[in-house]
Amino acid sequence: VKQTRAVFFISDRTGITAEVLGHSLLSQFDSISFSEITIPFVDTLEKAQEAVKRINQLAIKSEARPVVLSTLVDPAISEVVASADALFLDCFRIFIAPLEQELATKSSHAVGRSHSARDAPVYRHRIDAVNYALAHDDGLKLAGLEQADVVLIGVSRCGKTPTCLYMALQFGIRAANYPLTQEDLSSTYLPTPITPYRDKLYGLTIDPMRLQQIRYERRPVGQYATIETCESEVKKAELLMQYEHIPYIDTTTKSIEELAVTILHQSKLTRRIY
Amino acid sequence: VKQTRAVFFISDRTGITAEVLGHSLLSQFDSISFSEITIPFVDTLEKAQEAVKRINQLAIKSEARPVVLSTLVDPAISEVVASADALFLDCFRIFIAPLEQELATKSSHAVGRSHSARDAPVYRHRIDAVNYALAHDDGLKLAGLEQADVVLIGVSRCGKTPTCLYMALQFGIRAANYPLTQEDLSSTYLPTPITPYRDKLYGLTIDPMRLQQIRYERRPVGQYATIETCESEVKKAELLMQYEHIPYIDTTTKSIEELAVTILHQSKLTRRIY
Repeated sequence: VKQTRAVFFISDRTGITAEVLGHSLLSQFDSISFSEITIPFVDTLEKAQEAVKRINQLAIKSEARPVVLSTLVDPAISEVVASADALFLDCFRIFIAPLEQELATKSSHAVGRSHSARDAPVYRHRIDAVNYALAHDDGLKLAGLEQADVVLIGVSRCGKTPTCLYMALQFGIRAANYPLTQEDLSSTYLPTPITPYRDKLYGLTIDPMRLQQIRYERRPVGQYATIETCESEVKKAELLMQYEHIPYIDTTTKSIEELAVTILHQSKLTRRIY
Repeated sequence: VKQTRAVFFISDRTGITAEVLGHSLLSQFDSISFSEITIPFVDTLEKAQEAVKRINQLAIKSEARPVVLSTLVDPAISEVVASADALFLDCFRIFIAPLEQELATKSSHAVGRSHSARDAPVYRHRIDAVNYALAHDDGLKLAGLEQADVVLIGVSRCGKTPTCLYMALQFGIRAANYPLTQEDLSSTYLPTPITPYRDKLYGLTIDPMRLQQIRYERRPVGQYATIETCESEVKKAELLMQYEHIPYIDTTTKSIEELAVTILHQSKLTRRIY
């Protein structure tokens, strides 16, 4: 039987920072089954006391005390949460002191500096990029491709749309995508509509067996989801990208984060937002 | 003149964890201008040495040594990066030791556990949720709303689409959205097509002045972007949501993360993915 542990992510804002860091730490402990609970918006002493109550109630019912990972900016609130019957790890306090010393300045201890909409240009970049990705999804709109930061190409269902949306939402990058159709693949030249944007192109490819599964779930009838079609399309698409010297990446075993960061990095693009 | 500092985010995978944590730490130091550089996929000793070279080159050119925030799982690679002429803060090592002690088990020190696609169910939840959000954006498709985790309602351009896409990509939540049109707003009852899903509804509202700006940028002609139309629509939408006891949130000063987390939390939904 696996050991189980409750883990609380506690934040004065969304809790996303604590979740992201915590989740990657916990993934290092395979033999334990974690039950994760996020308590966001803990920005008053009262809410901190409520959080402590929840933690302590669970501690009583559990074999082992919970783990608390927090990103609480206000030292008074942090101190309340630290009093819970748990292993308390504060991701903020631990780094703020060495940073204050190194930068020879005091931190502002201001709540809600990250993931806040107050920063209007960030919000605008993001919404613009999302609108751009939606308007230029699946080759929908070819006008305006000159404004793209990157144009993803690849066969139908190889992962273009979620990668574009991720880049838009998380990086503020204007990402368009263009599907390589059977007609496009009958040639070893780039399709005419995207030739002018050659320098912005980045290819996605995928294992034909995996592609077949994905397509079958979506449209099981006809030639679209047969293994022959998938093999032929993927092979032709890879040859086309090789002939035309378009960089490409295999999406089969990669997460959307890995795809997005790899493309960003190799295309020498810079995140517009954090 | 503001002090400027170079900050490196170094990771054996995407670097997203280090960026997210680092960015929220740095936002506490208003008086300093940071120049942020991410070096992802540092998964060999050679790449670690290259990273050190880049850091040291910048250190020579800068007034003050850089800051390095890393999430390097392999202690040997981490040790190489630690030798750079920089303030070295490892977000991993600092927490792994207390966690190992608390959990009475050794961590696996395995690279690439987080943000990796190897976890097939995570990938599938995510793609399903993104496809769902795209198919059920802007009231496009009413069939299948019974499968939604949440259905956002609100006037045109109040922030429904990016919030749904964020919830899909980051949380694996199936989020649909339905626009409240002028016709819908002529009544104080919920529009008929969404009445069966009353328990899944969550409203978005927005300051009419801000709405007017957003709409004007998109479609400056006609009644759509006038302040009168915006004021009238927002007022009617808020009244409708109040009469029908639909919870709602003002998007004007909130980031997409804040909106998504608040809706998740108040609708008592659980993230399907991390």
